[in-house]
Amino acid sequence: MSFPFFSKLRQKKAYMQLVQDELQKVRDTIAAQTEHFSPYMRDYMRQVCRGHGKMLRPGLVLLTAAATGGIKPEHTTFAAMLEMLHMASLIHDDVLDKADTRRDQPTPNALWGNELAVLLGDSMLAQAMVMGADIGEARFIRRMALAVRDLCEGEVEQSSRLWDMEMSRADYYELIRKKTATLFAMAMSGAAYLQGLEDEMVEHLNRMGTLLGISYQIYDDCLDLTGTDAAAGKTLGTDNEKGKLTLPVFFLMESTSEDVAEYVRNCVEKHQEIDYTRLRNTEAFAEAIRLSVDEGLARNSEAREVLWMLPESTAREALTEMTYRLDEMLQNCCC
Amino acid sequence: MSFPFFSKLRQKKAYMQLVQDELQKVRDTIAAQTEHFSPYMRDYMRQVCRGHGKMLRPGLVLLTAAATGGIKPEHTTFAAMLEMLHMASLIHDDVLDKADTRRDQPTPNALWGNELAVLLGDSMLAQAMVMGADIGEARFIRRMALAVRDLCEGEVEQSSRLWDMEMSRADYYELIRKKTATLFAMAMSGAAYLQGLEDEMVEHLNRMGTLLGISYQIYDDCLDLTGTDAAAGKTLGTDNEKGKLTLPVFFLMESTSEDVAEYVRNCVEKHQEIDYTRLRNTEAFAEAIRLSVDEGLARNSEAREVLWMLPESTAREALTEMTYRLDEMLQNCCC
Repeated sequence: MSFPFFSKLRQKKAYMQLVQDELQKVRDTIAAQTEHFSPYMRDYMRQVCRGHGKMLRPGLVLLTAAATGGIKPEHTTFAAMLEMLHMASLIHDDVLDKADTRRDQPTPNALWGNELAVLLGDSMLAQAMVMGADIGEARFIRRMALAVRDLCEGEVEQSSRLWDMEMSRADYYELIRKKTATLFAMAMSGAAYLQGLEDEMVEHLNRMGTLLGISYQIYDDCLDLTGTDAAAGKTLGTDNEKGKLTLPVFFLMESTSEDVAEYVRNCVEKHQEIDYTRLRNTEAFAEAIRLSVDEGLARNSEAREVLWMLPESTAREALTEMTYRLDEMLQNCCC
Repeated sequence: MSFPFFSKLRQKKAYMQLVQDELQKVRDTIAAQTEHFSPYMRDYMRQVCRGHGKMLRPGLVLLTAAATGGIKPEHTTFAAMLEMLHMASLIHDDVLDKADTRRDQPTPNALWGNELAVLLGDSMLAQAMVMGADIGEARFIRRMALAVRDLCEGEVEQSSRLWDMEMSRADYYELIRKKTATLFAMAMSGAAYLQGLEDEMVEHLNRMGTLLGISYQIYDDCLDLTGTDAAAGKTLGTDNEKGKLTLPVFFLMESTSEDVAEYVRNCVEKHQEIDYTRLRNTEAFAEAIRLSVDEGLARNSEAREVLWMLPESTAREALTEMTYRLDEMLQNCCC
């Protein structure tokens, strides 16, 4: 197995192979969790654990650990645990969105129905908590549980505020902080905490994770409007269909091109899908994407500032490269 | 608010009023949790927290605490936490069962749709874990998380083994141990653990909780076949509709009345609902219920043995009374 996101970082090949190996250990740890389940669960769990995404959260855990003294076995468990929390949330998301495929694979709800999918997500969440209790103290697990709560709150806020004209850009940022950035923040701060770093440094890395998570969600929101299904490996345009107000939509509603701004505001008010075939060639659309991308880039840049606080190391460089890779992904959304 | 199950225990009125007051504190603690959620969650949570069931699990926590040295604030939090885990599992159950009402109230999925209901359950689970981390160490939270995993596994096994002729009575017991008895066991052992009792005593109380939980599930299974919707406050007969093999069904399939046994086995094999209007007046049916009830009574009796290990106290007597109340509930299922 290889993890393409990390292959694309401009680091010495030998080092990036080490990262690949460590990520593979995380996959193995996740696969090993399936053995803790009863025979009736195991087969379902095995299948769920087969696919994998970009492994961004585990990657952040491992590189943060490597940059602050080295990867301990607890870090591998923690990385696996975070990825499982992420997987659990995706399983429930797919139930809620009635999604049939993810990463070109059928979803658990498509394979076995909603009932099993909800319970699989619950079980995975519970197993992640068991793993958390294996490696950390109550304070640590408390933060994990708060992260899960934030994640759910983000999702609830999102589904409560579809087509909601009252929603502000500040609300959007708070929503994606909860929904996406929480696990990125946990990845970096948790790795630092398990390393025994001081609270202040843990908080700095927590902030860095938050910034990267927000930037990543902005990228995802832009991709939904500018990418192709084939390249993204998922169905795009669904935010618009559902009425999610993402950052480019805010910029469109505030566009200096009055007719575009009015058209988009009108769609939102009337709970109508925005017709992007019409908009996509306008300067206003390009501008909205560019402004959104800039917001992401600014966060990546702020995130890099935190890295100066860490001692120089190949791992720190790799983390820096991760932020530049996110820059590139954002920039590729611009026309 | 009053908690009828506990009003019916034959204890001095003054003592049972104390229990009612302590249970009310648990309800208040649950209600207070809603304040930890963001405004978009809070209203949903408030409504979910309004209704309540028999409060058996919190009652077991409080009486076990009282019988082993007194109720501490941690016990109240713990009782609230367990009830919230139970509520979270009911919220998800109702999504899975597409149930519209519970305890004569509309369910969250009926009120707000599956999406919100799944997320509300998740959030409640996460908040329960936060509460666990507030009162116990990692070891304690680990057990909680394992309990949640057991609960989910029990549910998955149940839904995987509908109309399953291969299922044995031993499988049934293991299934209801996971699905129902786990939280009863946690209630008693967790209360003892928070009291600082020795591991051996914690395990004895864990076993007592398991016995009572199994007995309670047997009661619930019998009630599904013998009760009336109005008295039970819920729709009965659903186990049969879905093809759940409960204890009375096993006894029917093994009945000495050959034609009854064959009819029931035949229904299960063909995945057909059993027609109880025909069976309900037969001696074989009465016998199957009686044998099931006896299994429950035997467990209550074994549970009472554990109580002898505790010092004499009004609380211990109240726990004994709880087991006798469960006896009565079981016996009332007999015709």
